[in-house]
Amino acid sequence: MKQIHQEQIGKAVSAVKEIEEIANFYFVGCGGSMAFMKPAAYIFDCEINIPASVYNSGEFNTRLPYGLGSNSVVITCSHSGTTPETVEATKLAREKGAITISLTNEEGSPLWEAAEYPIHYDWGPGTDASDLNKGLLFGLVFHLLNNVAPNEKYNKGIKALDSLDSVIQKTKDSFSARVKDWGKSLKREELIYTMGSGASEGECYSFSICLLMEMQWIHSSYIHSGEYFHGPFEVTDFDVPFILVKGLGRTRSLDERGYNFCTKFSDKVYLIDAEEFDMEGIDQEVQEYYTPLLVGSVLRILADSLAYERGHSLSARRYMWQMEY
Amino acid sequence: MKQIHQEQIGKAVSAVKEIEEIANFYFVGCGGSMAFMKPAAYIFDCEINIPASVYNSGEFNTRLPYGLGSNSVVITCSHSGTTPETVEATKLAREKGAITISLTNEEGSPLWEAAEYPIHYDWGPGTDASDLNKGLLFGLVFHLLNNVAPNEKYNKGIKALDSLDSVIQKTKDSFSARVKDWGKSLKREELIYTMGSGASEGECYSFSICLLMEMQWIHSSYIHSGEYFHGPFEVTDFDVPFILVKGLGRTRSLDERGYNFCTKFSDKVYLIDAEEFDMEGIDQEVQEYYTPLLVGSVLRILADSLAYERGHSLSARRYMWQMEY
Repeated sequence: MKQIHQEQIGKAVSAVKEIEEIANFYFVGCGGSMAFMKPAAYIFDCEINIPASVYNSGEFNTRLPYGLGSNSVVITCSHSGTTPETVEATKLAREKGAITISLTNEEGSPLWEAAEYPIHYDWGPGTDASDLNKGLLFGLVFHLLNNVAPNEKYNKGIKALDSLDSVIQKTKDSFSARVKDWGKSLKREELIYTMGSGASEGECYSFSICLLMEMQWIHSSYIHSGEYFHGPFEVTDFDVPFILVKGLGRTRSLDERGYNFCTKFSDKVYLIDAEEFDMEGIDQEVQEYYTPLLVGSVLRILADSLAYERGHSLSARRYMWQMEY
Repeated sequence: MKQIHQEQIGKAVSAVKEIEEIANFYFVGCGGSMAFMKPAAYIFDCEINIPASVYNSGEFNTRLPYGLGSNSVVITCSHSGTTPETVEATKLAREKGAITISLTNEEGSPLWEAAEYPIHYDWGPGTDASDLNKGLLFGLVFHLLNNVAPNEKYNKGIKALDSLDSVIQKTKDSFSARVKDWGKSLKREELIYTMGSGASEGECYSFSICLLMEMQWIHSSYIHSGEYFHGPFEVTDFDVPFILVKGLGRTRSLDERGYNFCTKFSDKVYLIDAEEFDMEGIDQEVQEYYTPLLVGSVLRILADSLAYERGHSLSARRYMWQMEY
C-alpha cells in the first residue's frame, strides 16, 4: 500500500482513538459502494463488542439512527465522490459530531470536502489491489480493530494486503477458462440468482444489482443461503440458474446446505468455492474475511465474459447518467 | 389483547428490566418469521441508543455475534416452534446468558421449551389482530421501549393495538376491489419486483420470498427504494412489474422518488400508498411504525387474488415439508 494511503488511514485511526468510548460504526453508501463495506461490518460483528451496521445513504439520512452522535464513527464511500445522498450522509454525521471517514477515487470531490478524514483510493488496470477501494477499506478495518482491541490477528490482516494482489491474480487465472464457459452458457438467461452468506453477502448482492441488473439488464436477486430454505427455494427448477458462493469459515455450512439442495433440482448451478482459492500469504486466521475480495474478482471476470458473449457492454446505461432522477 | 398474552409480555419485559445495561437486541428468525421482526429493529433504531439487529437464524448461529452475552436480549420467532435453526439460536443465546423471548403459535413446541420467556400468539380467521404474531410483537416492542426510556409515545403505541383489528379490516376493504384487478393483470407474470424502504422493508421482502417465490413460484426480488437508483433501476422497462409501497414518515421520500421514476418507464407499477390508509385510533406519532402491518394486510389479499387467478393454491409446495433438506 502506498505511503500516502497509509498516512490517510493513520490519521483517521488516530482520530477514532481519541473517542473515549466508541458507541457505533456506521457504514453508509449506495449500491456497490454500500455493498463492498458489508464485509467490514461482518468482521466487526465477529470480532468486537461495538455495533457496526450498514445503511443505504438515503435510508440513513431520512431514518437518522438515534445512536448517531459524537461517539459514532461514520464511514462513507462514493467512487466519484458526488453521490448526493452519500455526501449528505457525511455532512449530517459530521454535524452530529461523529468522526467521518470517506473513501473516494476523487480528491477534491464534494465527498472529499465533506469528510473530516477523506481517504483516496486508486483505480484502473495495473493498480495494486491494496490501493483499490477494497484493499484500503480492509487496511482501515484491521487498523481500527487493532486500536480498539489489539490482537496479533489484526496484524495478520494488515500483512495480508501485501499478498492480496498476487492472490487475486492467481484466483482470476484459475477461474478464467471456467468463467468463459459460464458466460457462454448463461448468455441467453433473462434471470440469474446469486446465493451466499456471511462475509460474501455484499459481493453476491453487488453482483446481482450492479453487474447483472445495472450493467447487463438481467433480472436478478441475491438470496441468503440460510434464507433459501424458508421461501426462495420453491422457485428452484431444472432451468433456473444460480451463481453460488461457498465461503470459508463460520457460515460455510449454510452455503453448503444451499448448494447441496440447489444442485438436486437445478441443472444450472455455477459454483465459486473459496476452498479452491490459493491464498498463500494470507494467514489462515483472516482467510474467511478476505474471501469476498477473491469472490469479487471471479464475479468481475464472469461479468466481462457475459458482456462479451451478449455484446452488451458493461458501460451501457439507459437511465443512469442519461437523465435527471 | 388477551390477558394471557399481556401476562406473557409482562414477564418478558420484567426480565429485561433486570438487566443493568442492555447491550443489544437481536431479532432472530427465518424467512417470514425473520422479516416480520424488521419493523421492530427499525423502531428501536429510530427511538433508542441500544443497537438492534436482525439475523437469519442460521447466520446468527454460525456467525455468533461477539456482542452476544448476558446483557443481550434475543427475540426469536417460529410459527410451528420447530424451525431447527431458530430453536438452536434460542438455546445458544440462553447458554450465553442472554434473555431469550420467543414468539410461537405452538405452546410446548421445541422453541417454547428452549426460550426462557415464551410468548404464544393466536392464528386463524377471526383472531383479533392484537393477538396475532405482529400485534404481539408490537405490544412487546412498545412495552420494552417504555421500560428503557419511558415516553407517552410508547403508551400510544400500545393503545393503537386496540384499534389495529378494525384498521386492518378497513384497509382490506378499501383495497379489495383493486387487488382483484391486480391479480388478474399480474397472473401471467413470471417475475414481479417489490419496492419499499424503512419500516416496510420486511413486508416487501416477505412478500417477495414467501408469497411470490414460495407460495406462487414466481421469480421476485425486494428492491430498497434508495438502492433502486444505484443499479436495479436499469432493469426497469415498460413490461416489468413492480409492487411499490409508499410508507409514511421518515423514508417516504425515498419511496416517492422510486415511484416517480419507475412509473415513467414501467407500465406495470402497482402502488400501495400508506397515505390512503384510514388509521383512526392509531395516534399520528406511531402511524409510521404501524404502516407495515397494514401494508402486509394488503399484500396478503393480493396474494389471495393472484393464487385464485393462477389456480395455484398458496399452500402448494414442491420441496418444503415434502422431503428432507
